[in-house]
Amino acid sequence: MKKLLRVDMANLKVNIEDVPSEYAGLGGRALTSTIVNKEVPPTCDPIGRHNKLVIAPGLLAGTGAPCSERLSIGAKSPLTGGIKESNSGGTAALKLARLDIAAVVVEGVPEDRPDADNFHVLKIENDKCFLEEARDLAGQGNYTVCERLHKKYGERVSITSIGQAGEMRLAGSTVAGSDMEGMPNRHAGRGGMGAVMGSKGLKAIVIDDTGAHAVQPKDKEAFTKAARDFVKALRECKGFIEQLRTCGTPGGIPNFNAFGTLPTRNFSAGCYEHAEKIQGAAIVEIAKSRGAKMHSCSPSCPIRCSVIYHDASHKFLVGGVEYETVAMLGSNLLISDVDAIALMNRLLNDCGLDTIETGAALGVVMESGLIKFGDSESAIELIKEVAKGTIRGRMIGSGAAVTGKILGVKRVPAVKGQSLPAHHPQSNKIVGVTYCTSPMGADHTAGIMYDQTVHNPEGKVEKSRNMQIQMGFVDSLGMCMFSSRGPAGYNDFMTRLMTALNGKPYTEADLIELGKRVLRTEHDFNKRAGFTKAHDRLPEFMTEIKIKPHDLVFDVPYDEVDKLYDGI
Amino acid sequence: MKKLLRVDMANLKVNIEDVPSEYAGLGGRALTSTIVNKEVPPTCDPIGRHNKLVIAPGLLAGTGAPCSERLSIGAKSPLTGGIKESNSGGTAALKLARLDIAAVVVEGVPEDRPDADNFHVLKIENDKCFLEEARDLAGQGNYTVCERLHKKYGERVSITSIGQAGEMRLAGSTVAGSDMEGMPNRHAGRGGMGAVMGSKGLKAIVIDDTGAHAVQPKDKEAFTKAARDFVKALRECKGFIEQLRTCGTPGGIPNFNAFGTLPTRNFSAGCYEHAEKIQGAAIVEIAKSRGAKMHSCSPSCPIRCSVIYHDASHKFLVGGVEYETVAMLGSNLLISDVDAIALMNRLLNDCGLDTIETGAALGVVMESGLIKFGDSESAIELIKEVAKGTIRGRMIGSGAAVTGKILGVKRVPAVKGQSLPAHHPQSNKIVGVTYCTSPMGADHTAGIMYDQTVHNPEGKVEKSRNMQIQMGFVDSLGMCMFSSRGPAGYNDFMTRLMTALNGKPYTEADLIELGKRVLRTEHDFNKRAGFTKAHDRLPEFMTEIKIKPHDLVFDVPYDEVDKLYDGI
Repeated sequence: MKKLLRVDMANLKVNIEDVPSEYAGLGGRALTSTIVNKEVPPTCDPIGRHNKLVIAPGLLAGTGAPCSERLSIGAKSPLTGGIKESNSGGTAALKLARLDIAAVVVEGVPEDRPDADNFHVLKIENDKCFLEEARDLAGQGNYTVCERLHKKYGERVSITSIGQAGEMRLAGSTVAGSDMEGMPNRHAGRGGMGAVMGSKGLKAIVIDDTGAHAVQPKDKEAFTKAARDFVKALRECKGFIEQLRTCGTPGGIPNFNAFGTLPTRNFSAGCYEHAEKIQGAAIVEIAKSRGAKMHSCSPSCPIRCSVIYHDASHKFLVGGVEYETVAMLGSNLLISDVDAIALMNRLLNDCGLDTIETGAALGVVMESGLIKFGDSESAIELIKEVAKGTIRGRMIGSGAAVTGKILGVKRVPAVKGQSLPAHHPQSNKIVGVTYCTSPMGADHTAGIMYDQTVHNPEGKVEKSRNMQIQMGFVDSLGMCMFSSRGPAGYNDFMTRLMTALNGKPYTEADLIELGKRVLRTEHDFNKRAGFTKAHDRLPEFMTEIKIKPHDLVFDVPYDEVDKLYDGI
Repeated sequence: MKKLLRVDMANLKVNIEDVPSEYAGLGGRALTSTIVNKEVPPTCDPIGRHNKLVIAPGLLAGTGAPCSERLSIGAKSPLTGGIKESNSGGTAALKLARLDIAAVVVEGVPEDRPDADNFHVLKIENDKCFLEEARDLAGQGNYTVCERLHKKYGERVSITSIGQAGEMRLAGSTVAGSDMEGMPNRHAGRGGMGAVMGSKGLKAIVIDDTGAHAVQPKDKEAFTKAARDFVKALRECKGFIEQLRTCGTPGGIPNFNAFGTLPTRNFSAGCYEHAEKIQGAAIVEIAKSRGAKMHSCSPSCPIRCSVIYHDASHKFLVGGVEYETVAMLGSNLLISDVDAIALMNRLLNDCGLDTIETGAALGVVMESGLIKFGDSESAIELIKEVAKGTIRGRMIGSGAAVTGKILGVKRVPAVKGQSLPAHHPQSNKIVGVTYCTSPMGADHTAGIMYDQTVHNPEGKVEKSRNMQIQMGFVDSLGMCMFSSRGPAGYNDFMTRLMTALNGKPYTEADLIELGKRVLRTEHDFNKRAGFTKAHDRLPEFMTEIKIKPHDLVFDVPYDEVDKLYDGI
């Protein structure tokens, strides 16, 4: 029987219960969203006592299936006011699954204690779970937190933590997860999950799975066979997966630049004259020349697309220099210096801020003229202010929409309060439909697809709908979305794995229904939180002002966009 | 035939047209809200090209009826995202009415010109209207703007202007109106109307009614008789009106303190130990000892409740030290020094920020610990930063909700993004229902009433509904709300005036229907802008944490609150 951990941060108690029947058989995003929808009042204050932070591994975590260890973190979002699931790589999902823990539900807030005394560490072990004071960690960045906790608890534990941004309850703050090297490089970045964790006085979760066991599929032989076949398919895959393997996620930059979807100069264009300087091949070349390597972001991944990056003195700087980060802090700010981008990445990982949201916020800052486009030094100085808690730092830490309000900027790339990620919807209209309609706010991981018909607004709603459904089940299985974009027969691999895991048939129809269920659940929460179709809109400049290189606006008719949920 | 002025700020053209039939017979709030609902796309960017700023005198303006010269200013609000009407005293309504202008509709934004070149002055004369460059006024506060424009155009013109806050498009910014002394002391304060004016590059409107004529009622004799009777009734009125006349609007402080509705320490209490120091009697005593006096805020008012205030050296500091200002910058911040409060009032009038919204924002700042409660010097220094455009200044200028987001504060007194004014809804549950349900966001002028049943949550919805309907027609007639709270038979006075004005019967049912029509119109806009009943909620702490002195929470059931619009 899988367990559910309830952590009461008002009374500092941990309770372990069996997973209630209504949550049975769910994992990852399906589980976090179901719990949030069921247990969190939709109109509550996201940083108040009624919100809950729900952490769940996916259904395939701990089984050894490749790319299966994404960790889902859900809550009502301080950034959007709607439901949120944000997932990341790292080592926590594997360990939770091995410990038979379906979800950790963090509840309540410390009502009357002053901030400095508020912070605790949750320790999860095979036979017990408890909270410990963490005064020595309060005010520290994620790298220091990880270092100290590893020193205290050993190198093998997994650490999930917040930096200063989460402590300050900033709406752009992340929950960091330690990677294979024990560094806090993997972030559940979007939607301010760090602020929810911070509001509850939880600085870190330390998971020690000593004595735990691997998840046992009902039909081991069939499972192993399916997993091996999928690994083989991934390894043999050309195209996108090969590009990931050799150039990391920024490997797509030349294509995106040609498609016109590379956000440039605060989304005022979709192509960047210095794109070649920030493309994956260039980054990997610098990284390798400094002795760094590529690695996998979670234990079971055979793709290994994450680029570790060293500074000019060949010292570790940051792990996982990803496309979204490079584009939002690079082309979006007219910054082509990879060292500067990597340093910003490191600083944001440390204080625990979303590189996408903060890149967009910095774009808005530059649009206002407060900092000039391309001025990486000033951008770095501004990011350094976040950890210090200055108002300027807190402003960018609160995201692009709030930054735009304060600076009186009209060009603010955000939907439902969340900034657009690095796929420009004026040239990729499928992702534009996803930005409009996803319960997550503007989010590429909620459903993205590139097609060749950029000039044609037709058919985009159906494609977005299908991708959103797919991501609904991919995120619930705990699978990395990239692994779904390579080998043919992906759904078949998933049904084989799920059938062998459960020891009873799991069909493609079950996958689709799981994906639809996730979307219905999230849509229900948002509706009760006050969202309507009026919120399913891109910023108006994106439908009115054409951008380079293709002179396009987002022109999918909104009455078509409004039909996305028909049939879900 | 009344005229409608359309001012195209993209092309710098002014067009005078006859009032279209669909707007005929409307004035004040009814007219601004009807035009906004009809002409502004509800999901548009409030500081973008599609929003319109609509300025309209009420139906009784220019007739000589007492207290009839409130000026309505409407738009989609940058603060709430919903429809807004904010009204103020001053001299503009009278002059517009004398010029036969039913409304000024400011449209478009200067798309490509840099900010410094954006600002213009609209000059309205009897026979012509035109735009002039205002580069010398850009960056100046309202007092300097008024002084320079009076110097250029003479002492008799009326000036409507924005300060630096409006230029910066801050969501807490006001539109200032010059008073009887030609000073910018009257502010359409709520909802960021200054930001809309600023986004359009309109720095000021100068109205010269030389050669214009008084509005001629159809039945002059009956009108004069009704107006005289109403003036007499106001003059003879005891109780509230007498209190206004002798102690100004802060005269209510002792009562509010006893009722438990005086917001104290960021709304964490409803009574203040030093209330007597900031009460109207004390303020008027200081004012008079320094040679200042009380005056009327608009030409036809016989009450004269506005307190002019001089500094310690007997020099003019600010006009109209009002209750909301005194409470929000006084008890709400634990500041009892009237000189400090008056100085903050002056500084906020000058840069053009709402004293209510900014008082609430400063309360949130103090809640965060950034400034200590009671530290008036630091509060004054922070307010001074607004005009300088620092990020700290812009933060408080963006209102309480944004300030709360940036500072990670849980106790943020706001509904629909607009801060609560100075009547604590935990002790006055009627106004609490109004805060929840008004299309304006939390707004006392949308419908307030004090009753003696503070411990009883019943009957509050009906009372709020009736007051909201009344304010709908009061604001459309252009009447001051205070004049409706004194003499018996108010509706009878209004129907006599309207009947004589139009030369045909105007009944109490017509007044009620006008009020309901206003609410329906505004509710329709907000619904299309994405508002639902989920937004008709007070901050959760107000329903959960009891406050002194009566140990009350807001406990009107939300399913009752949700019935407010039934029958409207």
